[in-house]
Amino acid sequence: MELKKYIESNSKRFLDELIELLRIPSVSADPAYEKEVFKAADFVKNSLEAAGVDHAEICPTDGYPIVYGEKIIDPAAPTVLIYGHYDVQPADPLDLWDSPPFEPVIKKTKNHPNGAIFARGSADDKGQFYMHVKAFEAMLASEQLNCNVKFMIEGEEEVGSENLDVFVRDNQDKLKADVVLISDTSMISLEHPSVTVGLRGLAYMQVEVTGPNIDLHSGTFGGGVANPINVLCKMISSLHDENNHITIPGFYDDVEEYSKEYRQQLNKAPFDEVEYKEKLDIKETYGEEGYTTIERVGIRPTLDVNGIWGGYTGEGAKTVLPSKANAKISMRLVPNQNHKAIAKLFEDRFKSIAPPAVKVKVVPHHGGQAAVIPTDSIGYKAAEAAIDEAFGKKAIPTREGGSIPITALFQQVLGLDPILLGFGLDTDAIHSPNEHYGVDNYFKGIETIALFFKHYHQLSNKDKG
Amino acid sequence: MELKKYIESNSKRFLDELIELLRIPSVSADPAYEKEVFKAADFVKNSLEAAGVDHAEICPTDGYPIVYGEKIIDPAAPTVLIYGHYDVQPADPLDLWDSPPFEPVIKKTKNHPNGAIFARGSADDKGQFYMHVKAFEAMLASEQLNCNVKFMIEGEEEVGSENLDVFVRDNQDKLKADVVLISDTSMISLEHPSVTVGLRGLAYMQVEVTGPNIDLHSGTFGGGVANPINVLCKMISSLHDENNHITIPGFYDDVEEYSKEYRQQLNKAPFDEVEYKEKLDIKETYGEEGYTTIERVGIRPTLDVNGIWGGYTGEGAKTVLPSKANAKISMRLVPNQNHKAIAKLFEDRFKSIAPPAVKVKVVPHHGGQAAVIPTDSIGYKAAEAAIDEAFGKKAIPTREGGSIPITALFQQVLGLDPILLGFGLDTDAIHSPNEHYGVDNYFKGIETIALFFKHYHQLSNKDKG
Repeated sequence: MELKKYIESNSKRFLDELIELLRIPSVSADPAYEKEVFKAADFVKNSLEAAGVDHAEICPTDGYPIVYGEKIIDPAAPTVLIYGHYDVQPADPLDLWDSPPFEPVIKKTKNHPNGAIFARGSADDKGQFYMHVKAFEAMLASEQLNCNVKFMIEGEEEVGSENLDVFVRDNQDKLKADVVLISDTSMISLEHPSVTVGLRGLAYMQVEVTGPNIDLHSGTFGGGVANPINVLCKMISSLHDENNHITIPGFYDDVEEYSKEYRQQLNKAPFDEVEYKEKLDIKETYGEEGYTTIERVGIRPTLDVNGIWGGYTGEGAKTVLPSKANAKISMRLVPNQNHKAIAKLFEDRFKSIAPPAVKVKVVPHHGGQAAVIPTDSIGYKAAEAAIDEAFGKKAIPTREGGSIPITALFQQVLGLDPILLGFGLDTDAIHSPNEHYGVDNYFKGIETIALFFKHYHQLSNKDKG
Repeated sequence: MELKKYIESNSKRFLDELIELLRIPSVSADPAYEKEVFKAADFVKNSLEAAGVDHAEICPTDGYPIVYGEKIIDPAAPTVLIYGHYDVQPADPLDLWDSPPFEPVIKKTKNHPNGAIFARGSADDKGQFYMHVKAFEAMLASEQLNCNVKFMIEGEEEVGSENLDVFVRDNQDKLKADVVLISDTSMISLEHPSVTVGLRGLAYMQVEVTGPNIDLHSGTFGGGVANPINVLCKMISSLHDENNHITIPGFYDDVEEYSKEYRQQLNKAPFDEVEYKEKLDIKETYGEEGYTTIERVGIRPTLDVNGIWGGYTGEGAKTVLPSKANAKISMRLVPNQNHKAIAKLFEDRFKSIAPPAVKVKVVPHHGGQAAVIPTDSIGYKAAEAAIDEAFGKKAIPTREGGSIPITALFQQVLGLDPILLGFGLDTDAIHSPNEHYGVDNYFKGIETIALFFKHYHQLSNKDKG
């Protein structure tokens, strides 16, 4: 097939371009990287133009810009809207990286025998959205593009996509499409290709507990004054009961209880708990009583402390009774849980359990709704057909624990169910040191995406009659 | 009195010398300051020689050196051993200092209307041990020194005095004395001069909880894998019950229960809880059920988290499920509690409450025994008489929450009950930002120390016959 040939004969350049993009430390959470984030936006615009869009533009927002590009081959043809993000997670802890996070290297791993690109953002999401740019280039060059294409690549996904929300609401005509295609999730493996049909939502909070107004000597004052760290620990631990159920009143009110049948189906997905524990070097998994690991990360809401700090954390010993203790706490939400309502429930609860001896501040960071993707749409069928043709296997529908707040936005504002066609693996260490993305996954993804367009076009026409 | 005149006419130099010493950032807990700690030792040796000791030496140890100096006026005369430390606590958090911690400035405060020296170590303990060097100089210059003097000034008090322990055991002849005099504690106020007759012991631990072997994405893994921060908080909070009693089995076995009478006596010490709360800007005090604030910090053991850290603590939001969480936890101990035994009880308990889903490391940092000083000794009576003459007030015996592990060492190895004649105030913010030491306290201390020598000499002779 000519398209496949084109991809093969340009594979080195396709890889080099991605590596060049990965060299840009576009960390959206840390103001220190502001310039680099803008630099990444320019890179995306240029790459879209080089790939052959009719026009591309950098759309300013109150935060980091959104890169938009489109190619309209025929107003009558179906239109595919591609979403991705060029910003990345912070790279720390840096000392745990085997190679610098923004100096990509290709190394073989157990799950990537033909090599993987090690760099922050390689899988989340630069390596994945860039597959769409290259698939588009390949289709165009081999004269097989039969759908209109719109690209919307943002720079604030890792910090809540707040300005994207505004952008989408303000540009509904411009973004008009028949389907949204996103590669920002993972698949089980290249042997078990899967499509994500569910994502959890997110409510991310920051809390501060203040005891005395200054740091005190723990000998002179210890025992007489509330220690904000002791109190914060007590408060955090009281957010779960002995069965690891979350104790925030009303938290589970909108959580769907699934049928035995559904849960059995869900647990059929290939998952080796022994290997899972070995890989993470843990004796036991840990979570909500009465649910399997697949269910705990897929269909159940959770509450995790993402960061905590207070008092003396340097070398040696300092006998201080600190003034403040802080924590970043996030909750993963399931369909029907409203992230704003949950944030409020958390705030009320957290303040209510604080002893009068301390002051408490609660600041919501950002959030997003959970999403469920129907499997009877043309888009989903096209994804199934593409995977079938590319892998010779039937796609397994999976629920993923992560959140892409934007999916819910597309459903609400544009009325489009996004297709979550991701090619990363759970072991690719996204958000962790040594994040990587398989070279085979990259090229297989480019091929599968092109096939998605082919099948989407066919099925749409069939659909019309 | 000539001695008083000498102090007055040299007061500017006495202050300038202390300020020079305070400029040296001799932070023993942080290896980054190693050179400075040695520099402080040299300063102490030179100042002893300048003050007129027969000889001074810098005694190397496995850690930071101990400065020794002596003046023997008459083998038959009583000998006073002075103990102090030239190392200081770390200064962070630096941003909370109104002026740089190692650039001393004199400012007036509510409790120090004639000014206080603001600098790390001003009260703990440079400003206090240096009073002895100047009192010695003044007595010698005004020909009123009637006791032999031995100085032992160490550089590891803030990190556990481990090498001092060795030094004292190896140099019992050299350190032979009739009494040990230490100024490393506080008094209630210049209007209520007091002598410390009790100190709490200390057991300082560092703990590490490890969940997965790498940082994970809290979406993909959250709910399925033990989050070490959540677990650490649960473990820490379980160390106290709902009445703020410590739940470590055996922890209270050796804790003395005091009589109603004793507790009433103790609670007679001037203490204004309203002002205490105002100063610390807290609505309520907080501590063990059934005890007053004075009792909680004086005669009851406590457990405080001195520092905690784990996960993402930078700007913005990072949805990480971290691999590790750490805490520094110290326990203040009361007489009869053995700090090594308590450290072991803590370690056993902490490991026993860890769920199998995590690994736990417990490392004892350092510790020390609590101390009780008898009030019927010649030394204590001399302190009372000195305060009487200097302040025209009767000294109030007090229990202090802090620890000076060395006091127990003196009692055990040298068989000497140290006299804890401190001149700082609880509000001097030792171990905190903006530590300071009153100028009046400094000079009143020099005078009182000289008077201690006078009365100690008199009372010893009376004692002899």
